[in-house]
Amino acid sequence: MDGDSSSAGQRPTIAPATLVARPLALDTFRENVVLLARNNPVVRPERLAGVRKVEVVAGSLRLLAVPMICDDPSVVGPGEIGLPQPVFRRLGVTSGDAIHVAPARAPKTLDLVKAKIAGESLTDDDYRAITRDLAGHQWSDMEVAAFLVACAAFMTTEETLALTRAMIGAGARLDWGRPMVVDKHCIGGIPGNRTSLIVTPIVAAHGLTMPKTSSRAITSPAGTADTMEVFARVDLNEAEMRSVVEACGACVVWGGRVNLSPADDVLISVERPLSIDTPEQMVASILSKKTAAGSTHLILDVPVGPTAKVRDRRSALRLKKLFEYVADGIGLSLEVMITEAPEPIGRGVGPVLEARDVEAVLAGRADAPSDLKEKAVWLAGRVLEFDPALHGGAGERRARDLLESGAAMAKMEEICAAQGASPIARRTGALTHEVCAATDGHVASIDCLRIASVARLAGAPTDPGAGLELLRKMGEPVRAGEPVYRIHASEPADFGFAIEAAGEDSGVRISR
Amino acid sequence: MDGDSSSAGQRPTIAPATLVARPLALDTFRENVVLLARNNPVVRPERLAGVRKVEVVAGSLRLLAVPMICDDPSVVGPGEIGLPQPVFRRLGVTSGDAIHVAPARAPKTLDLVKAKIAGESLTDDDYRAITRDLAGHQWSDMEVAAFLVACAAFMTTEETLALTRAMIGAGARLDWGRPMVVDKHCIGGIPGNRTSLIVTPIVAAHGLTMPKTSSRAITSPAGTADTMEVFARVDLNEAEMRSVVEACGACVVWGGRVNLSPADDVLISVERPLSIDTPEQMVASILSKKTAAGSTHLILDVPVGPTAKVRDRRSALRLKKLFEYVADGIGLSLEVMITEAPEPIGRGVGPVLEARDVEAVLAGRADAPSDLKEKAVWLAGRVLEFDPALHGGAGERRARDLLESGAAMAKMEEICAAQGASPIARRTGALTHEVCAATDGHVASIDCLRIASVARLAGAPTDPGAGLELLRKMGEPVRAGEPVYRIHASEPADFGFAIEAAGEDSGVRISR
Repeated sequence: MDGDSSSAGQRPTIAPATLVARPLALDTFRENVVLLARNNPVVRPERLAGVRKVEVVAGSLRLLAVPMICDDPSVVGPGEIGLPQPVFRRLGVTSGDAIHVAPARAPKTLDLVKAKIAGESLTDDDYRAITRDLAGHQWSDMEVAAFLVACAAFMTTEETLALTRAMIGAGARLDWGRPMVVDKHCIGGIPGNRTSLIVTPIVAAHGLTMPKTSSRAITSPAGTADTMEVFARVDLNEAEMRSVVEACGACVVWGGRVNLSPADDVLISVERPLSIDTPEQMVASILSKKTAAGSTHLILDVPVGPTAKVRDRRSALRLKKLFEYVADGIGLSLEVMITEAPEPIGRGVGPVLEARDVEAVLAGRADAPSDLKEKAVWLAGRVLEFDPALHGGAGERRARDLLESGAAMAKMEEICAAQGASPIARRTGALTHEVCAATDGHVASIDCLRIASVARLAGAPTDPGAGLELLRKMGEPVRAGEPVYRIHASEPADFGFAIEAAGEDSGVRISR
Repeated sequence: MDGDSSSAGQRPTIAPATLVARPLALDTFRENVVLLARNNPVVRPERLAGVRKVEVVAGSLRLLAVPMICDDPSVVGPGEIGLPQPVFRRLGVTSGDAIHVAPARAPKTLDLVKAKIAGESLTDDDYRAITRDLAGHQWSDMEVAAFLVACAAFMTTEETLALTRAMIGAGARLDWGRPMVVDKHCIGGIPGNRTSLIVTPIVAAHGLTMPKTSSRAITSPAGTADTMEVFARVDLNEAEMRSVVEACGACVVWGGRVNLSPADDVLISVERPLSIDTPEQMVASILSKKTAAGSTHLILDVPVGPTAKVRDRRSALRLKKLFEYVADGIGLSLEVMITEAPEPIGRGVGPVLEARDVEAVLAGRADAPSDLKEKAVWLAGRVLEFDPALHGGAGERRARDLLESGAAMAKMEEICAAQGASPIARRTGALTHEVCAATDGHVASIDCLRIASVARLAGAPTDPGAGLELLRKMGEPVRAGEPVYRIHASEPADFGFAIEAAGEDSGVRISR
């Protein structure tokens, strides 16, 4: 038999390791950071060089933070702990509150990261623990990165399902009290691909329920939420969103106010700067968000093209099967549509410029970009066919009727009125610059990544009027000196960055 | 034939994207951080949420930094950029200098990280580019973490050699102008294993050259440099180190002042908090540091034990072969010694307590821990056998003679005098607490990791007198209530943390 040795003797009186909360006018984005005076009595700075985290406890709230050492007593005194705005909010404290600080013990879930690095498979329970700690901001960025890269090296389909389930469970989940709630989503990567803003009003005009939550751009020039914001307010809370859906049958809001799959938000904030975009993380992210938003039936657009996220049909099929496996596991009716995406869709790239394309399609104007219109009608048709009352194969016809009759436009106006007036000015950037062809020929290719990068440097989506207008699409003829696209910007610095980038590589190739 | 489109028209005048340098009394450790006012005219904070890095250029110096947004104009005004101490130093600027700031373009080497994540092998050129950017602080912590985890998933022996070579080339390299420069190194993980401080004077007393650079503890309770500092000054620069080696034939200094393998320092700063300790990184780290320090012949101690870094003989043999492959590739004569390490070595854990053990061995005192003495004599014997003049197999005998005759002690005193007086007080922490056995029995096991953790919480190595004294070693009998070890600390908070941890799990198991 074994017995453990134990600590004996009188436990000494220990000075409580507390500091006084001092809010700082600093924004450290997602990562928790705190400032400690070098001569603070609680945590020695030298020790932090190796561990680099402290545990910060206020009442029942506990989080881990990266400490920085401050040598300026006017910013943080020895008895204080400086709390940047995000940490201050997360701890829910007020200035002067006592904060308990200690060298951090690593969260137990970091052992699971080590196991994943060692190539092990993790269980449902493991993924539940991981998503809880992710949602609770218990991991540092470097730990999140380590987890993501280890998952990129090896992750089974069962694990992808387990992660998806756990992410759904780690946040709020909307219940619409209806047997069928439809949605349409695209995995992204194609500039100008704003079909959701056309599909949603078509589907709602038909009578299906489609409470669409969408994202803002993080590394692209516009997310669906950014473009929708040109038409209406999008940062609705859950109650506001419900009342719009009750009234109109649909909405297009920003998902960030509703706390759906908060673990996913943390993963995304590290995936994006590292350009990690593995099938497993994409599936878990999209399906957890959609399920948490209450969707029961989903049409998923997977664009395939030489500069799209998915480069060939074989990869697209593998991705499709993974989406289907996980959707089955969580009880979501899913249809994956593999679409051709050789170039950007529509003519505008950037919120206001894309909104102009969307409006042209909804209004049935002659100059509306036909690629955007046709793709939206086709996708809307697939969503409509979830309706058991609709004759098989009749979806696309029905979608076209609803669009061309003006019913979709009327529904869009109803949704916009219900969501509230747009907070942003609907004008394109006044600084313009035309990027021109160097030779005669026709447009051989347009690089989606490069176009997105130039539009983003021009200021999109932060500056909603910034971005670019494609003046030539693939296959169209062009002469030397004629413009292939026009850059719009409002700020001289942004304008300069965009022109410089377009000068290095415009992303448009001309073949003679 | 293809022709690229090009940017045409007059390039507009762009407001220079410069801010004024303002030093801040902040220490952000290794990571580059800058503070920008929310309303600064150059970089929009919203955009940084996705990219999270800015390029900071001062004169010809350029680095990438993580920005934080400051809403307090008394800290950073709109036209200013706040530079914490490490960034300020790295840029070599003075207050008020113009700093050019732009949204960061990712360093090209991040494409190599993506390739590594995708499971590709990288070339010699790739690793040279990577170590250059690592040494130049071009990557963020999360990017370093992504690289390390991708390498942990898959890295060939050829890549390990390429990385080692590249790391040697990325920093300074010492040349001692002698055909044979010996060294002895341990991969670490065993508390109290301070053999280097005994081996070095033995070897130098014999007449071999042994300029030992050692590390300070990062996550352990003492590094060789920390314990040596109890005897003498260790933060010597290269010139000072040379004069000690000229005079004594040996030294034991901290490697941090000599800029050996700076890329390795960056990797280590992320490996430690993530507990990434793969064979490939260990080999590249140790062999690059030793070669850069000018060693030609190295004895490497690889302890194997249930709580050591290497847990079984099979792993130890694999590690040995990898060390040998890379050593051959870089022209280093290497002997790897696999040693048994079931428990800590010696009695003291923590700088002053370990120094006491070392001194007892060197002075030939009867109470000297025999495990430390025997291991040091054996390892010194192996180093001595690099001497072509020594009869094969005679090394250990010669080492024992040099130790027991007092020659090693005299050499150690000579080295210490040459390095300069120790800056730290040689006394153990005054707060003591005995951790006692709960049952009668004998000591069945002592957990190296737990012992290290308790000693570290007690304050070691920052507080050199903190740590613990093992009062029972494995196999020794103990009665319920008798102490198994004694905690030493100086600060009440540290003392409390250590006692609490020992109370949860002392690390010592008693079998009846």
